Amino acid sequence: MHNLVIIGGGGAGLTAALTAKKTNHEADVTLITNERLSYSPCALPFVIGGEIDIEKIAKGIEEICENSGINCVIDEAISIDTEKKVVETKKRRKFPYDSLIIATGGIPRVPPIKGVDLENVFTLQRIEDAEKIIKKAKESKSAVVIGAGAVGLEVAAALTKLGLKVTLVEMFDHVLSRCLDEEFSEIIEQKLKEEGIELIMGSCVEEILGDKEVKAVRICDRDLPADIVILGTGIRPNTEIAEKAGIETVDGGIKTDGYMQTNVKDVYAAGDCVDSRSLITGRLMLSQLGTTAIRHGMTAGMNSVGGYATFEGVLNSIILKIFDLEIGRTGLTEKDAKEEEIEIVTGRIKSTTKSEYYPESKEIDVKLIFNALNRRVIGAQMIGGGEVAGKIDLAAFAIAKNACIEDIMKLKYCYTPPLTPSHNALVLAAENAFKKLRRIKEERKRRF
Amino acid sequence: MHNLVIIGGGGAGLTAALTAKKTNHEADVTLITNERLSYSPCALPFVIGGEIDIEKIAKGIEEICENSGINCVIDEAISIDTEKKVVETKKRRKFPYDSLIIATGGIPRVPPIKGVDLENVFTLQRIEDAEKIIKKAKESKSAVVIGAGAVGLEVAAALTKLGLKVTLVEMFDHVLSRCLDEEFSEIIEQKLKEEGIELIMGSCVEEILGDKEVKAVRICDRDLPADIVILGTGIRPNTEIAEKAGIETVDGGIKTDGYMQTNVKDVYAAGDCVDSRSLITGRLMLSQLGTTAIRHGMTAGMNSVGGYATFEGVLNSIILKIFDLEIGRTGLTEKDAKEEEIEIVTGRIKSTTKSEYYPESKEIDVKLIFNALNRRVIGAQMIGGGEVAGKIDLAAFAIAKNACIEDIMKLKYCYTPPLTPSHNALVLAAENAFKKLRRIKEERKRRF
Repeated sequence: MHNLVIIGGGGAGLTAALTAKKTNHEADVTLITNERLSYSPCALPFVIGGEIDIEKIAKGIEEICENSGINCVIDEAISIDTEKKVVETKKRRKFPYDSLIIATGGIPRVPPIKGVDLENVFTLQRIEDAEKIIKKAKESKSAVVIGAGAVGLEVAAALTKLGLKVTLVEMFDHVLSRCLDEEFSEIIEQKLKEEGIELIMGSCVEEILGDKEVKAVRICDRDLPADIVILGTGIRPNTEIAEKAGIETVDGGIKTDGYMQTNVKDVYAAGDCVDSRSLITGRLMLSQLGTTAIRHGMTAGMNSVGGYATFEGVLNSIILKIFDLEIGRTGLTEKDAKEEEIEIVTGRIKSTTKSEYYPESKEIDVKLIFNALNRRVIGAQMIGGGEVAGKIDLAAFAIAKNACIEDIMKLKYCYTPPLTPSHNALVLAAENAFKKLRRIKEERKRRF
Repeated sequence: MHNLVIIGGGGAGLTAALTAKKTNHEADVTLITNERLSYSPCALPFVIGGEIDIEKIAKGIEEICENSGINCVIDEAISIDTEKKVVETKKRRKFPYDSLIIATGGIPRVPPIKGVDLENVFTLQRIEDAEKIIKKAKESKSAVVIGAGAVGLEVAAALTKLGLKVTLVEMFDHVLSRCLDEEFSEIIEQKLKEEGIELIMGSCVEEILGDKEVKAVRICDRDLPADIVILGTGIRPNTEIAEKAGIETVDGGIKTDGYMQTNVKDVYAAGDCVDSRSLITGRLMLSQLGTTAIRHGMTAGMNSVGGYATFEGVLNSIILKIFDLEIGRTGLTEKDAKEEEIEIVTGRIKSTTKSEYYPESKEIDVKLIFNALNRRVIGAQMIGGGEVAGKIDLAAFAIAKNACIEDIMKLKYCYTPPLTPSHNALVLAAENAFKKLRRIKEERKRRF
């Protein structure tokens, strides 16, 4: 009987276990996890904001495993012997394997700031973190969120909804600066300010102040009062056990091939601890998203027990809800494209979510990015009051299918006034880019 | 100077005029229309239901034309001399043309039922119709809507919202029977009944009763009281002027080539009076949608003044909002595919609009239809509490790009609990179809 061991019970690990068991009923699948609960960490900011009940998001991993014929071991893997093919745990148990999946996830990055270990300075990765934050937030008046990535923004919004005075601090000049181009970051910044969040961009926290508990955060010679501090400074791949076992990493993440196999035969890896490849550029990059973890897990789970699946790459399709704004992106930003030295043409349009005369219609701002040479769509960004998810998914599909400007201009979209406008925003954005390309063409002509 | 004349100021005609003027600023563009207002007829049911203010949907055609340098003639074209290239109007004016666009739209079908000409029996095509219906509805208690197509359903819902007791009568066995497969029609029928609408399917009205005004509708030996009757029995292409001029029609609609040119040189046609071709089967069909009219108009407008554009075909992507249900479809239904003798495999899934634990999450029911031989997606149907438009557009894009099951399974979708579930419904539906295909494969193997 084939013996599969999986280290880690997060989205990637559990998906891998379930997929492996479905792929090969005969396989013996063992999941080693130090968590008893399965949940989407993406839900935690909304749990903090009071939008989701905490008890609704989690299911017991042991129960899931039992129902699916998976052996669940609540323990922590501490070493892998890739020669003898054995995993050893903290409780000194040994698990031999025929194939292994490493799904150890990520560890919140804690910036080396003085005072970062004071009480009420939190990271947000686990359900226990959310519980602690909720408890402390109830008796807090002010919060400082460090890091304006997705989680930082979501938590800043959540704490604001709870009535706290929130300051958001970011090292880069803009929020979501790695996902969006400036003009889109600025729309969000405007919104955050309107909601009463103070933004301090392009600055690093100098010190977190307090005796036992945090009292304030020092930045740019100001002491911002803070009853609670959230570190939204991202997560780093948890590769310790893999690296100790001689498994190759690149830029912090475990390197895998298109089957999610590491450089060591029969050892696979999946989820936040793993590098992905950009579907557009082919370059290695981190894609620490729930959706990526699921695909990693499915691919590794299948291949590790004799199935066949490939992981072709990522576009980092992301959607966020910050107050009533829906923010979406996929593929390359204009900045990314410049770094890659891709000549681009962009199309941008402001449209509406429904027919403009329909009472509940809201604005939507769409930007599409095309390779100017082969006219292929390579990126999309949008912010609006609705309808963002479907459009981002469509743009991602178009990128994956190598669609060009004309393909999007010809989109056979649907229309009814209470749900959509008569002119589709993606089509309008593509038309906008098309006109720019024509102008480039005409200008070149005119020179001769 | 090139002289373009356009007959008809609806969506197709006006779009053609505006596109022509943009394409060729030098062209002399004359729009002959018997309507002074431009509006989307798709908005009228929602005007009746009180969701949209009537004054917000319409703009003056003369003003639009003036702002764009188009000559607007409020008159009615009554004949075309394709030899002399002249259009004559009711007011006996003659308009010579170099190229002509016929955009005469459609005429509501009035079934040959006794009593159909009684007062308070209405069709719904023009803004005046909506005004009359609104006025009469205010003093009415009961309504019969004849025809359960898109407009019939929308008006039935609108009148129900206004407090009328509504009966919906349909000749075919199901609502929207030409757009949807039975199991999806049945979901809508269930909803309509829950909202208090009586459905009489598979039956024809025998007589409309009353003296001067309608009093009742006789059907299946029952006399249904009716203060108001709406004929939602579709529209037929208005091809009278075209046919008189010797322009070819097929199955009721004007036949055009891929440039929207009729069989007569320099005479183009666009909108509800014109046949389209199915993008999937290549067959001629009617596609009397606002979105089709716009694309027809853009194509004809461009080609008629020296531009270049093609119209490649339609998928009849439709979305409707009936009460709180969003109903969408694109491409072929299972029924259509059977008629075309295409071997199919379908994928169906019930999912949620947001993460299932998010409070505002609603159900969504998705069906994808694939050609079982080449695995290409050829149709989609869905009904849900939200997020339908984006998914229909994505499915339509996938059909147009010849995408197959695997392409949809690999969709790089976005995810955040308050807006989308962690597993995309289109991906799940494709996976469902994929499993069925695998089962077919395995069954075939087993036979040997």
